[in-house]
Amino acid sequence: MSFNTFGRVFRFTTWGESHGPALGAVVDGCPPGLALSETDLQPFLDKRRPGTSRFTTQRQEPDQVRILSGVFGGRTTGTPISLMIENVDQRSKDYSEVALAYRPGHADYAYDAKYGFRDYRGGGRSSARETAARVAAGGVARAVIHEVSILAWVSEIGGDAIDPARFDAAEIARNPFFCPDPEAAKRWEKMVDEARKAGSSLGAVIECEATGVPAGWGAPLYAKLDSELAAALMSINAVKGVEIGDGFAAAKLRGEDNADPMRPGMDGPEFLANHAGGIAGGISTGQPVRVRVAFKPTSSILTPVETITREGTASEIMTKGRHDPCVGIRGAPVVEAMMALVLADQKLLHRAQCG
Amino acid sequence: MSFNTFGRVFRFTTWGESHGPALGAVVDGCPPGLALSETDLQPFLDKRRPGTSRFTTQRQEPDQVRILSGVFGGRTTGTPISLMIENVDQRSKDYSEVALAYRPGHADYAYDAKYGFRDYRGGGRSSARETAARVAAGGVARAVIHEVSILAWVSEIGGDAIDPARFDAAEIARNPFFCPDPEAAKRWEKMVDEARKAGSSLGAVIECEATGVPAGWGAPLYAKLDSELAAALMSINAVKGVEIGDGFAAAKLRGEDNADPMRPGMDGPEFLANHAGGIAGGISTGQPVRVRVAFKPTSSILTPVETITREGTASEIMTKGRHDPCVGIRGAPVVEAMMALVLADQKLLHRAQCG
Amino acid sequence: MSFNTFGRVFRFTTWGESHGPALGAVVDGCPPGLALSETDLQPFLDKRRPGTSRFTTQRQEPDQVRILSGVFGGRTTGTPISLMIENVDQRSKDYSEVALAYRPGHADYAYDAKYGFRDYRGGGRSSARETAARVAAGGVARAVIHEVSILAWVSEIGGDAIDPARFDAAEIARNPFFCPDPEAAKRWEKMVDEARKAGSSLGAVIECEATGVPAGWGAPLYAKLDSELAAALMSINAVKGVEIGDGFAAAKLRGEDNADPMRPGMDGPEFLANHAGGIAGGISTGQPVRVRVAFKPTSSILTPVETITREGTASEIMTKGRHDPCVGIRGAPVVEAMMALVLADQKLLHRAQCG
Amino acid sequence: MSFNTFGRVFRFTTWGESHGPALGAVVDGCPPGLALSETDLQPFLDKRRPGTSRFTTQRQEPDQVRILSGVFGGRTTGTPISLMIENVDQRSKDYSEVALAYRPGHADYAYDAKYGFRDYRGGGRSSARETAARVAAGGVARAVIHEVSILAWVSEIGGDAIDPARFDAAEIARNPFFCPDPEAAKRWEKMVDEARKAGSSLGAVIECEATGVPAGWGAPLYAKLDSELAAALMSINAVKGVEIGDGFAAAKLRGEDNADPMRPGMDGPEFLANHAGGIAGGISTGQPVRVRVAFKPTSSILTPVETITREGTASEIMTKGRHDPCVGIRGAPVVEAMMALVLADQKLLHRAQCG
Repeated sequence: MSFNTFGRVFRFTTWGESHGPALGAVVDGCPPGLALSETDLQPFLDKRRPGTSRFTTQRQEPDQVRILSGVFGGRTTGTPISLMIENVDQRSKDYSEVALAYRPGHADYAYDAKYGFRDYRGGGRSSARETAARVAAGGVARAVIHEVSILAWVSEIGGDAIDPARFDAAEIARNPFFCPDPEAAKRWEKMVDEARKAGSSLGAVIECEATGVPAGWGAPLYAKLDSELAAALMSINAVKGVEIGDGFAAAKLRGEDNADPMRPGMDGPEFLANHAGGIAGGISTGQPVRVRVAFKPTSSILTPVETITREGTASEIMTKGRHDPCVGIRGAPVVEAMMALVLADQKLLHRAQCG
Repeated sequence: MSFNTFGRVFRFTTWGESHGPALGAVVDGCPPGLALSETDLQPFLDKRRPGTSRFTTQRQEPDQVRILSGVFGGRTTGTPISLMIENVDQRSKDYSEVALAYRPGHADYAYDAKYGFRDYRGGGRSSARETAARVAAGGVARAVIHEVSILAWVSEIGGDAIDPARFDAAEIARNPFFCPDPEAAKRWEKMVDEARKAGSSLGAVIECEATGVPAGWGAPLYAKLDSELAAALMSINAVKGVEIGDGFAAAKLRGEDNADPMRPGMDGPEFLANHAGGIAGGISTGQPVRVRVAFKPTSSILTPVETITREGTASEIMTKGRHDPCVGIRGAPVVEAMMALVLADQKLLHRAQCG
Repeated sequence: MSFNTFGRVFRFTTWGESHGPALGAVVDGCPPGLALSETDLQPFLDKRRPGTSRFTTQRQEPDQVRILSGVFGGRTTGTPISLMIENVDQRSKDYSEVALAYRPGHADYAYDAKYGFRDYRGGGRSSARETAARVAAGGVARAVIHEVSILAWVSEIGGDAIDPARFDAAEIARNPFFCPDPEAAKRWEKMVDEARKAGSSLGAVIECEATGVPAGWGAPLYAKLDSELAAALMSINAVKGVEIGDGFAAAKLRGEDNADPMRPGMDGPEFLANHAGGIAGGISTGQPVRVRVAFKPTSSILTPVETITREGTASEIMTKGRHDPCVGIRGAPVVEAMMALVLADQKLLHRAQCG
Repeated sequence: MSFNTFGRVFRFTTWGESHGPALGAVVDGCPPGLALSETDLQPFLDKRRPGTSRFTTQRQEPDQVRILSGVFGGRTTGTPISLMIENVDQRSKDYSEVALAYRPGHADYAYDAKYGFRDYRGGGRSSARETAARVAAGGVARAVIHEVSILAWVSEIGGDAIDPARFDAAEIARNPFFCPDPEAAKRWEKMVDEARKAGSSLGAVIECEATGVPAGWGAPLYAKLDSELAAALMSINAVKGVEIGDGFAAAKLRGEDNADPMRPGMDGPEFLANHAGGIAGGISTGQPVRVRVAFKPTSSILTPVETITREGTASEIMTKGRHDPCVGIRGAPVVEAMMALVLADQKLLHRAQCG
């Protein structure tokens, strides 16, 4: 079932395909009176925009966002905010091969199995271009949670991880990899270049931290802050794993090593550790909220792979065209956007019940 | 915000606290005409029931489920199915310490920060007892997806993993650890005994596989099958990580190694690998749906941990009472239930849009 | 599709059939810290309870409500509140006639057409007994909107209306008809007695007013306060019409006669009329919120009516057993409950977005 | 709280203000493979379009709808369908009076009370222009329920009703009033002309009938077909009352007069009456689904009305500009659209649970 709305009271709905005229999002439930204009949103889109380095797809999209409703006199009115981004560089090419045979790892076969039919141009609805709409919506969310700072970075590419001792937040914006470790960035340059030239692709891990989240956002069950984050992050194309705090590493610890002891602090408790990633019992503790997200390698590769045609006969396919050699890189601004969207929703929900 | 309903058209709502008179679930949207009685549900509850071995909490709960509505003449009527399980062994004990100081790793501090107030008896709403209601609801879900078989097992305790070469599904029911590897089960017996006697606790990893899911369940975005599973599994107490298919391991692979090639098969494609865990583009492929779930070690330990009181003064706390030394063990039937509940919902959703 | 949950952030889910062991409601999203006990809820149930006069069904149900969760130390905890009411007087009788032939005006045929199957005992899920669960949930809602007073009365039975000039709120509790006009109450006594003895039934109109609703609750569209009220009220058994303010009478007015002029008042505007029923553009104006609700005559009558059997052959049926000669009478407390439930939801929603 | 999405599995979200650059709707959950193009939708928009006779507002809007996503090769793909309609004739005028004083009967005061702020140009979000987006979405809904025919007409203007004996469906498209009675149409021409010239306005009643709805759509409670219709219809601007079948007239009947007896028919039962409006127990019976909807007179009138300014001082206001003298007239295509949207949702829901 197609469900293109996310959120409970701060909600957004995205629409659009890779090769249609435009794509967009409708943000609903935004509080009134917030200062908002296109110039507030554009920087987030620019971070995610393709074609800015040789390490991402060469599709050229300005990704200019327009606000079509919900803002008056520079302030949000409380009514739905319609955001639209035109597709400019839908290169006319021959999609007959993709139309006829399924690319393994892509949504092709599953879509046909579900809908009997699909828009095969550039991935259609399952193209990573859809995330532009999320990033625009995420910009609105940030206006709702002005007290929160969100930062994502790539912590691992192709199995090669950053050295936490060299973590420098200022580095993230200085290289095309959102990498906080300048030495890792140098290594990744070679690795991604090599993969790109070989027509191969690499996976990546993104980490994201939100600071300034007060204690008390979330819910005990089902709409737990961690559960909402897991749903939001797993809904991004190519994501195959989500961890909160220590995640799978916590499963290897003993209880006493996994505890986050507390001491009296200036303003609420001072925590001596953050194995839990800032969430206990589904509710924020006031510590930084930390997540890790695994992106699989891009499925579009030049190596021929065994497959079948729509008619069910054996075939081989290799994916030509413009693709990200490591789709996880541009995932960093998308992960930030999803974090912002979940937190904005949780802030309003908390206010509803406990305001 | 408290949100105790899960699902979109096949929905369930749970209620109840650890030390209240009862807990339960209301299952809504169940198709009519399915054979259902309490004896269909009880076996799932018996698998999750505490007090059956020395490796789980010693709380004695028969966990007898009653069906209070929605079934007539042994068949579901299409109206809500109310399930109730009475709490029998809420031992009267002194909770004054827990009421006054926050147990690190528990929901205590976060609840107070949110609600200003909490039912501190036995963990209240955040007790793992709530999962009994999910397991009962999961039994109803299984009646909806009779074409699907679901099996979960513990694959790692305290960092000690099973040997996949020794995987034997028949072993899972033969030991108190839901362990498919008899040698690992022996090792775990010692490990969990040691942790229990030391008043410590261990984390665990659960794996779960659903076979028989046809291609086509799920959605391209947001309500993707993987996203719904992530939300469902992360909503279980103590879960800190979720992987679909290869999960974080996929982030270390190159595109050609992560592909799941296809060949013509008897009945649809034959896949040569399943890195994707049976889900591509958010939609099932017809392969087994595979997930991995990380459970942190139980936060209730006898080692004193630094903490603060409700008044904000420094203190120490150790958690006496009856607890699971490895809460992940009893997570296996809960993971199965959540898998069943998500798949039942997705089956009906698929029928709605593409039926 | 069975959907037994109502509300957006203050939600309730009801379950239960006329002749099952019990029925109930789960109230979710209630703010924490509110004083609540069974004695707060029971008076509302007592108003709706059957068997208290000869003008309602003679089924004897104490309708004692139990709170099974969500309250600790006399206060709501913010977690789901499970309410249960046992069915006591499900008289064992022969339902074979009802099982075999459809009662016109009842849900019998439509249920079979939908589900292929139904619990025919006492109306099953479509019995007006379900409204007991709503009334209990409505009692919780009232604790959420302590600033609001809600009062419903019967304004018309069998086409015979009260005289507005004789309206006396104090009268409502003094007669078995929730009638604010003592002379109308006398006339109705005869009318309902006559209908009851003739095995016939009468329709009724309920009016309800909520005072103390501040300006600003509601939404411009879709979740408009009037739209939510319409859905809530039309969801009550036997209701066939809903009006906000002047309703259909407004359609006969000219614009200048339908205006609600404003003057400066003590505390916000003073309105000179309330044709709109306290709602403009979907949002409360601070005036009393006024609705009118039409109840059809009970479909259970002793007059034989032409019908068909489940097999499709011609038949006749008359409905023996215990029934309300005018089901609208006991609708008054149900309308109050639905008003309370909608307003509690809207209060929390308003706080979420504009808090 | 702003909630601009309607529906459960076939859902639509509208956005846009009267004087913004555009307005639109996103339709989600549409089944795949349906033939759909802009030429399928445009006729419905043309029926609702303003400026086509002197009896509606003189604003000139071509209301050309564009499909921006979700359709490929002339067929729906199952992904969200984005519909956009540009605003062309937002006449630049002086809104300072409306910005400063509240127009009684309009949403002005309630919006300010809620949001502290509003887009006052042409009614902003609460303008009847929003219904263009609904009508476009309704066109998509009709493709989903091809088995159903929907027809709405104006049955009363300013208290002057049609003569049911003269009902002629073919007349509806022949006059500017959607009037099925040619003699009433003549009278209304004079009435509306008179009101228009006097700067006054008139209310109206719309009736709508859907034929071809099979028995079995709907739900016993809450998401009852009648409850969903009531919410949908009451969400239209200016609507103050909704009736299903006989509505308030049923409240005056005795049970035996309100029965809809059944006889064996060709294809299911033959009903001898339809007091219930085709819905029993919340579920369709296979008879025509009939509703009546009351539209209040347009609040924009030239007669000065007492009011207050934003600062709370006494004032008078009269509403100049282009307005419908009887907004109910153009309500007919909107009522049809809402009927289609509800039925499409219910069809898919029925298929989900009982398919």
